[in-house]
Amino acid sequence: MRVLGIDPGLNITGFGVIESDAFKNFQMIRFGVIRTDPKWSLPERLYRIHHGVEEVILSEHPDVLAIEDIFYAENVKTAIVMGHARGAVIVAGMRNNIPVFEYSPREVKMSVVGNGAAAKTQVQFMVRSLLRLREPVQPLDASDALAVAICHSNRHPGK
Amino acid sequence: MRVLGIDPGLNITGFGVIESDAFKNFQMIRFGVIRTDPKWSLPERLYRIHHGVEEVILSEHPDVLAIEDIFYAENVKTAIVMGHARGAVIVAGMRNNIPVFEYSPREVKMSVVGNGAAAKTQVQFMVRSLLRLREPVQPLDASDALAVAICHSNRHPGK
Repeated sequence: MRVLGIDPGLNITGFGVIESDAFKNFQMIRFGVIRTDPKWSLPERLYRIHHGVEEVILSEHPDVLAIEDIFYAENVKTAIVMGHARGAVIVAGMRNNIPVFEYSPREVKMSVVGNGAAAKTQVQFMVRSLLRLREPVQPLDASDALAVAICHSNRHPGK
Repeated sequence: MRVLGIDPGLNITGFGVIESDAFKNFQMIRFGVIRTDPKWSLPERLYRIHHGVEEVILSEHPDVLAIEDIFYAENVKTAIVMGHARGAVIVAGMRNNIPVFEYSPREVKMSVVGNGAAAKTQVQFMVRSLLRLREPVQPLDASDALAVAICHSNRHPGK
């Protein structure tokens, strides 16, 4: 199974593609970030995110898209912006007939580190370890996206 | 100029298409709502909204998409959901090379009724009057969408 994990954000959206087998062996396929310029209009920034995710889908052919869920934010304005970015990502999956699964940050940390309150650097350490990489994945947004993909694979081994 | 106005919402997204000339004469082309079922998953609901808006774009060929902006919500959870629906709509416009303009509810009311704090029923009354319709537009979501389209046309007459 090939999983595209997404850590959505208006400034930086992290993505990570992994391949997993029935024995929870993971292979890193690709990771990166989609950046937008705060000087762009909101529609331009959303389209950049949407288009960037679609480009990864069309080139890497994931079976599913796993995205970090959000239930809280610092304030209402931040929450609205976060919702926009997630909406643009989810539509990219749905338009390409890829089922979309949502996981809370707590679920992702629990699945990857075994601790729902783990620090981002702990997640980064475990992502590197599970994918047997020489270096920690940078930036953290890409590492978090790979963590979401690992979380989905752990929940659905071998599918 | 043909304008597609959108009043976005996860349960009901209103849409309205009008044609306007340089003298601010408006003609109603089409209006309606896109409904989603609360039993559907969030991705399914967003895709329904996105796809519904795209269907209107492809059949009515608007020159621009005007959408109600949001800056506040009852709480963070509502704000996130509202952001998702707006993101799905904005991406539908951008994918089809249609420029997207945003207007706050206050700007829309000011433009249509002349009072930024007008009640929804006042907006409905003026939408009916400006478009010379026999009946008030129902439901209010569709009337509000037409109001957003009128607001954009007032701001950009004849373009």
